[in-house]
Amino acid sequence: VGYDLTTPALVVDDGAFRHNLDTMTAALPGGKLRPHVKAHKCTAIARRQYVNGHRSFTCATLREVEVMADRGLGDDLLLANEVLGARRLDRLVDAGSRITLVVDSPETVAAAAASAVREVLIDVRVGLMRCGVEPGEAGGLADLARSRGLEVRGVMGYEGQLMLVADRDERRRATESAMAGLLAAAADVGGDLVSGGGTGTYAENTWVDEVQAGSYALMDTAYAGLGLPFRQALFVLGTVISVSRTWAVADVGLKALGMDHGLPAIDGAEVVFCSDEHVTFTPADRRFAVGDHVLVHPAHVDPTVALHERMHLVDGARVLETWPVDMRGW
Amino acid sequence: VGYDLTTPALVVDDGAFRHNLDTMTAALPGGKLRPHVKAHKCTAIARRQYVNGHRSFTCATLREVEVMADRGLGDDLLLANEVLGARRLDRLVDAGSRITLVVDSPETVAAAAASAVREVLIDVRVGLMRCGVEPGEAGGLADLARSRGLEVRGVMGYEGQLMLVADRDERRRATESAMAGLLAAAADVGGDLVSGGGTGTYAENTWVDEVQAGSYALMDTAYAGLGLPFRQALFVLGTVISVSRTWAVADVGLKALGMDHGLPAIDGAEVVFCSDEHVTFTPADRRFAVGDHVLVHPAHVDPTVALHERMHLVDGARVLETWPVDMRGW
Repeated sequence: VGYDLTTPALVVDDGAFRHNLDTMTAALPGGKLRPHVKAHKCTAIARRQYVNGHRSFTCATLREVEVMADRGLGDDLLLANEVLGARRLDRLVDAGSRITLVVDSPETVAAAAASAVREVLIDVRVGLMRCGVEPGEAGGLADLARSRGLEVRGVMGYEGQLMLVADRDERRRATESAMAGLLAAAADVGGDLVSGGGTGTYAENTWVDEVQAGSYALMDTAYAGLGLPFRQALFVLGTVISVSRTWAVADVGLKALGMDHGLPAIDGAEVVFCSDEHVTFTPADRRFAVGDHVLVHPAHVDPTVALHERMHLVDGARVLETWPVDMRGW
Repeated sequence: VGYDLTTPALVVDDGAFRHNLDTMTAALPGGKLRPHVKAHKCTAIARRQYVNGHRSFTCATLREVEVMADRGLGDDLLLANEVLGARRLDRLVDAGSRITLVVDSPETVAAAAASAVREVLIDVRVGLMRCGVEPGEAGGLADLARSRGLEVRGVMGYEGQLMLVADRDERRRATESAMAGLLAAAADVGGDLVSGGGTGTYAENTWVDEVQAGSYALMDTAYAGLGLPFRQALFVLGTVISVSRTWAVADVGLKALGMDHGLPAIDGAEVVFCSDEHVTFTPADRRFAVGDHVLVHPAHVDPTVALHERMHLVDGARVLETWPVDMRGW
């Protein structure tokens, strides 16, 4: 029995997905996990996480905050990214959503103060070459924020550079070192919230109050090497459209796959390269015929999801539910 | 005066865009060019190409064919990619659109024959490890197609492996060699159409009747090294959201950029890496402040466009028109 889907199509394996959600909820119940929606951009998945007891969420874009709030998932939304256009959120705050922004500069403090949002975290750099203030500057920025009428809930720091450190002991040591700076900043800043972490460090980072993990729900091949207790749940279903004597081609190309972590994988085959609408692969221990379905494993889930309008929850080839990827765009 | 756009935003430079369209039309007027819409996925751009005299178009997906036909651009649409679900096009053929499919196997011939589409090209492999039959097999497949009631218009062969060969003489020699196989196949197949080529070989490939170029309209940094007479016309506008002593961060991440050709570029800066919603860069000969706009040059236009809902035609910071990217998805 084959899939009755237009390909390429994002499919989510129901068993693996449930396993992932329940495994994480058991490890980090309730408020100990603030699921990051950027990994799936899908309010249907956020609602499953909510039902599992996680009422606070992490977002990366204004659009993600807007859609979550509009779908009734606005109990406690953290926009864990610097933004200047915070006034877009005013209508949501006025309608009762709780929204917290992060700030790392006088400009982002000013943008928050000019909006209806009243709560912020100080974003602290913990080794990643990206946003955030140095730990020693966090207290001063918190004072500035309070002087502008903002409530400072605490700090956040994302140790993104450690997510894919393969050795678990090394990952824990490096996380401890990164979190030392965050905790020092927290002492200066005040408030009661220390937020950080991700799927790669969810078990090692015992210093934060809440972990901002997102990838665990669907997983990808980049995380697969870490020995985490989560399973690959997201695939791109393709159709074999051409077969030669030594290779085959399916209709899953780089417009259907996040390519920043490299090539995707196909069971029983070696992927050679991707074009816009094709993946070329050489069969290893199975044969492929034109019309066959193949499951392509993306190397990076987050940007893969952003390329698709919808995803399908499946049990084998049976489609249980179809969910819009409703938090795409900006 | 700054841009009044939510960032990240796709922007198209009006001057460069007009230059590119007119330069290509002068080189390959009318039917000598069959513009490939996969590069922009935008019927507003296709309409400009149509107004420039190109009435036949190349598509890569069923969705692209559907949207082009529905927008009145269905004079002569070539779906230059193997598909099994050709019956989706029946309603468009019945409504008067002219649609040609490519075939490279008995299965794709059967799929075409089962649909309302009556015209096909034999897809011939000319060196790219992807779809197509070997030149020597083309005549036999044409016979099969005709026996199923299909009209065989001729052949197509895409020398994609040669698009980025930097030396022009070498590119021409290699194109001649690739096209020798295509012309041999054409002699066996019959019909009156030989289709192939792309932006990288549009000037060198003098053997085909029509060139399937798409990237020339917007260009990207991967093509910039070839010395083609086309200009970078597409950028992703971003906002600087964080500045440290040695680097800055803008809100253009790998969810806003096709990453398969590598990192994007920023004038006056060195790009270090991209995260989902960030590009981190070190300023070289200019200073960046929080709130500044930056123009990010994507390494590969086609998958970049596929990540955006719309693009804006701009003259400097002035938005002239806003176009939906209306051929996304499948």
